[in-house]
Amino acid sequence: MNITVWNEYRHEQKNPVAADIYPDGIHQVIAGFLKSEGVYVKTATLDEAEHGLPDDVLNNTDVLIWWGHVAHDEVGDEITAKVQQRVLDGMGLIVLHSGHFSKIFKTLMGTSCDLKWREAGEKERLWVVDPAHPIAEGIGEYFELEQEEMYGEHFNIPAPDELIFMSWFEGGEVFRSGVTYKRGIGKIFYFRPGHETHPTYYNVNVQKVIQNAVKWAAPVKRKRPVYGYAKPLETLKGE
Amino acid sequence: MNITVWNEYRHEQKNPVAADIYPDGIHQVIAGFLKSEGVYVKTATLDEAEHGLPDDVLNNTDVLIWWGHVAHDEVGDEITAKVQQRVLDGMGLIVLHSGHFSKIFKTLMGTSCDLKWREAGEKERLWVVDPAHPIAEGIGEYFELEQEEMYGEHFNIPAPDELIFMSWFEGGEVFRSGVTYKRGIGKIFYFRPGHETHPTYYNVNVQKVIQNAVKWAAPVKRKRPVYGYAKPLETLKGE
Amino acid sequence: MNITVWNEYRHEQKNPVAADIYPDGIHQVIAGFLKSEGVYVKTATLDEAEHGLPDDVLNNTDVLIWWGHVAHDEVGDEITAKVQQRVLDGMGLIVLHSGHFSKIFKTLMGTSCDLKWREAGEKERLWVVDPAHPIAEGIGEYFELEQEEMYGEHFNIPAPDELIFMSWFEGGEVFRSGVTYKRGIGKIFYFRPGHETHPTYYNVNVQKVIQNAVKWAAPVKRKRPVYGYAKPLETLKGE
Amino acid sequence: MNITVWNEYRHEQKNPVAADIYPDGIHQVIAGFLKSEGVYVKTATLDEAEHGLPDDVLNNTDVLIWWGHVAHDEVGDEITAKVQQRVLDGMGLIVLHSGHFSKIFKTLMGTSCDLKWREAGEKERLWVVDPAHPIAEGIGEYFELEQEEMYGEHFNIPAPDELIFMSWFEGGEVFRSGVTYKRGIGKIFYFRPGHETHPTYYNVNVQKVIQNAVKWAAPVKRKRPVYGYAKPLETLKGE
Repeated sequence: MNITVWNEYRHEQKNPVAADIYPDGIHQVIAGFLKSEGVYVKTATLDEAEHGLPDDVLNNTDVLIWWGHVAHDEVGDEITAKVQQRVLDGMGLIVLHSGHFSKIFKTLMGTSCDLKWREAGEKERLWVVDPAHPIAEGIGEYFELEQEEMYGEHFNIPAPDELIFMSWFEGGEVFRSGVTYKRGIGKIFYFRPGHETHPTYYNVNVQKVIQNAVKWAAPVKRKRPVYGYAKPLETLKGE
Repeated sequence: MNITVWNEYRHEQKNPVAADIYPDGIHQVIAGFLKSEGVYVKTATLDEAEHGLPDDVLNNTDVLIWWGHVAHDEVGDEITAKVQQRVLDGMGLIVLHSGHFSKIFKTLMGTSCDLKWREAGEKERLWVVDPAHPIAEGIGEYFELEQEEMYGEHFNIPAPDELIFMSWFEGGEVFRSGVTYKRGIGKIFYFRPGHETHPTYYNVNVQKVIQNAVKWAAPVKRKRPVYGYAKPLETLKGE
Repeated sequence: MNITVWNEYRHEQKNPVAADIYPDGIHQVIAGFLKSEGVYVKTATLDEAEHGLPDDVLNNTDVLIWWGHVAHDEVGDEITAKVQQRVLDGMGLIVLHSGHFSKIFKTLMGTSCDLKWREAGEKERLWVVDPAHPIAEGIGEYFELEQEEMYGEHFNIPAPDELIFMSWFEGGEVFRSGVTYKRGIGKIFYFRPGHETHPTYYNVNVQKVIQNAVKWAAPVKRKRPVYGYAKPLETLKGE
Repeated sequence: MNITVWNEYRHEQKNPVAADIYPDGIHQVIAGFLKSEGVYVKTATLDEAEHGLPDDVLNNTDVLIWWGHVAHDEVGDEITAKVQQRVLDGMGLIVLHSGHFSKIFKTLMGTSCDLKWREAGEKERLWVVDPAHPIAEGIGEYFELEQEEMYGEHFNIPAPDELIFMSWFEGGEVFRSGVTYKRGIGKIFYFRPGHETHPTYYNVNVQKVIQNAVKWAAPVKRKRPVYGYAKPLETLKGE
């Protein structure tokens, strides 16, 4: 399985707090704990040529992980269209945290993907509401992040195919923090936590969820369905 | 309630078969049977200024009905974005037949909305699979259209929130013919039948479904949710 | 529209705190604010003959509201089967609070309907996560109940057709507090709040939600579908 | 993985047509093609002690496959309750064909599970409508069964979590033929084909679907959630 971890990689180069936690970038930490699962992992970042996603990389990616925040607008429309097509053709997509506002997520959802937010380093507790789901395997009834950015409802997304995690925030909000969708032959998982100024991607529960999600989002083996004109399979009365 | 029936209105002006069935355009027939229900109905067509949808019309439309086919690309991106925003803000949208490939439907779905098709004037039988749904009220267990264009699966749409009608086609295909979605505060209903060379919009069952759908898609009365920065509702421990 | 408000009516006769808040029973308070909406409302209680639900009452009820807690086991299996059949045939059902453990709700869900609970009079904040839903019309982004019993996830129910409200609790839990299902031709709404020792059913938001739910759950007008042997609608090749 | 194939095993002992196709019973054919996948497979039948499902068998079954028809009523209520509990605790359940009317399926669904039917040996074509689903992996756009019993809508089940297959029948009906549900921690797949007088379980596509379904329905590894009284996780203001 080929995984590509895409990261905007701006905060970690400009914000000392983020740089201190993720000196090589969030993508390297994520790649690190995925590699340990025995899959082939690449990284790609915004400022590389073609954002690090030339056709040969994208076409050979089974699951793409996406982290972006301040530079969503700098992601080209052409690459966004290519990623959308790859998802429709079967590539898994895992969108993390502030990626809710990325072009690719908004394009695939068809909504604004807007939400409430607050950077106050407050406690988040993620509850498992779909314990039958493989993405929640190995996770207890809930897990806590001592300090995270708050995201609150209303989260302007389509009703998810599956709701796996719901967050409780110290400041009084709730959030649909782990949701799945299928688009075409591809699977999508959105996972809320991961603000750049907190060590969230070092949390073992967060890592386990992302590891599970990669397995869940792996492409099924099938050809793209045939669309367009179709001959009748039965004899029509008018013929 | 203010309803606007939007029609591309090209086939009826160029194709004698369509012109014979719909001499004043499909939109006038739809407007006609909706008016008889006692609501205020406007029509709008592609070749009018701003496609007949200037801001004062769009902003006062409660439910928009959309029929398009050969000229999807001529619908401006700006008007498509405005219609999308109106749906997110509560306007109902009913997409008919070949409107599956319209910019607005594809934008709201996030998928290709592609399908199989065949123009052979074959029999279609639409089965009610969600008899609890108000859109199916007054419809028997199924109804038939003696001659329709075939649309077949795979229909490349997100899993619908609700599946109301499933079609059987003489040539051997099936299709999810009546599906609902919510996007933001708005409701969307896609309804399959309505090829321009068949008198489908004169069928009493088709009319009943569209009348029901207009009532179902009527906006709820509420303000747009507040997004963005949010003060805590509870005292944070760190404060 | 005929509404029947069913109440176990035990706490209010034995527990002075409940009796003080609901001297005539929870059912009378609910019937009161529903009556003010201009519909015909009956009440029924456990200790009446046939639990107040003889056939002529049940068969003429459009929407049944259900509150029970300590005496679920005293509800007869026969009446439970009749209520189930009425729901399948179109009657709306609104299950309140501790009714999650009623025979009728467990029968219709097929699961244990178990949950976490705590009676500590803590704050509950109910967030609207489906602002397009008519049951949430007239409700702000959230509303608060200063003192309620806590119900926490995991709530052992099937994935709901629609998730409308999510609760935040002071003690750290979340809960899917407003959920809908269709079963047969009938519609079901479960709504969490309403512990007997708190004045929850006097809260205007709670009242508005139940009033909206009654309208939403009203039966569609249609015959029960035909089941069993079916003659072919098309000529079979083997014939 | 431990799979148990449960079969009523009556038709094959009394009906010469069924006996000719399935001389050792449907369960042996299913067990045969599952064994070839490298998992441990048991069979169990109605007329064995405890229907072949004593506690040590049931408690060690990861996925249970269920075929029944004429003798649903002979399945004990106690064993049905045990199977239900096992599903809620994580055991996968695959219900085949006429098992739609089994006690266990009706109990888990909460509906009548009724449908239309006709034994006329007509053609069925099963279309894949969710090509992203692992249960449909390796299956083309559709597959055909030259002779099958017809099942037609309305199928009185809850709206499925996922709709994978839709059937087209020669006689004019459609049917939701492959649907999934989660109940508690367990996963359920209902698959329509498999009348006892047709060689359906020898069909490679049918076999592939059931093989895929077994993998999909395998239990997640997690403890049963904790229900009942819960201490607060945060300090309550009133304390």
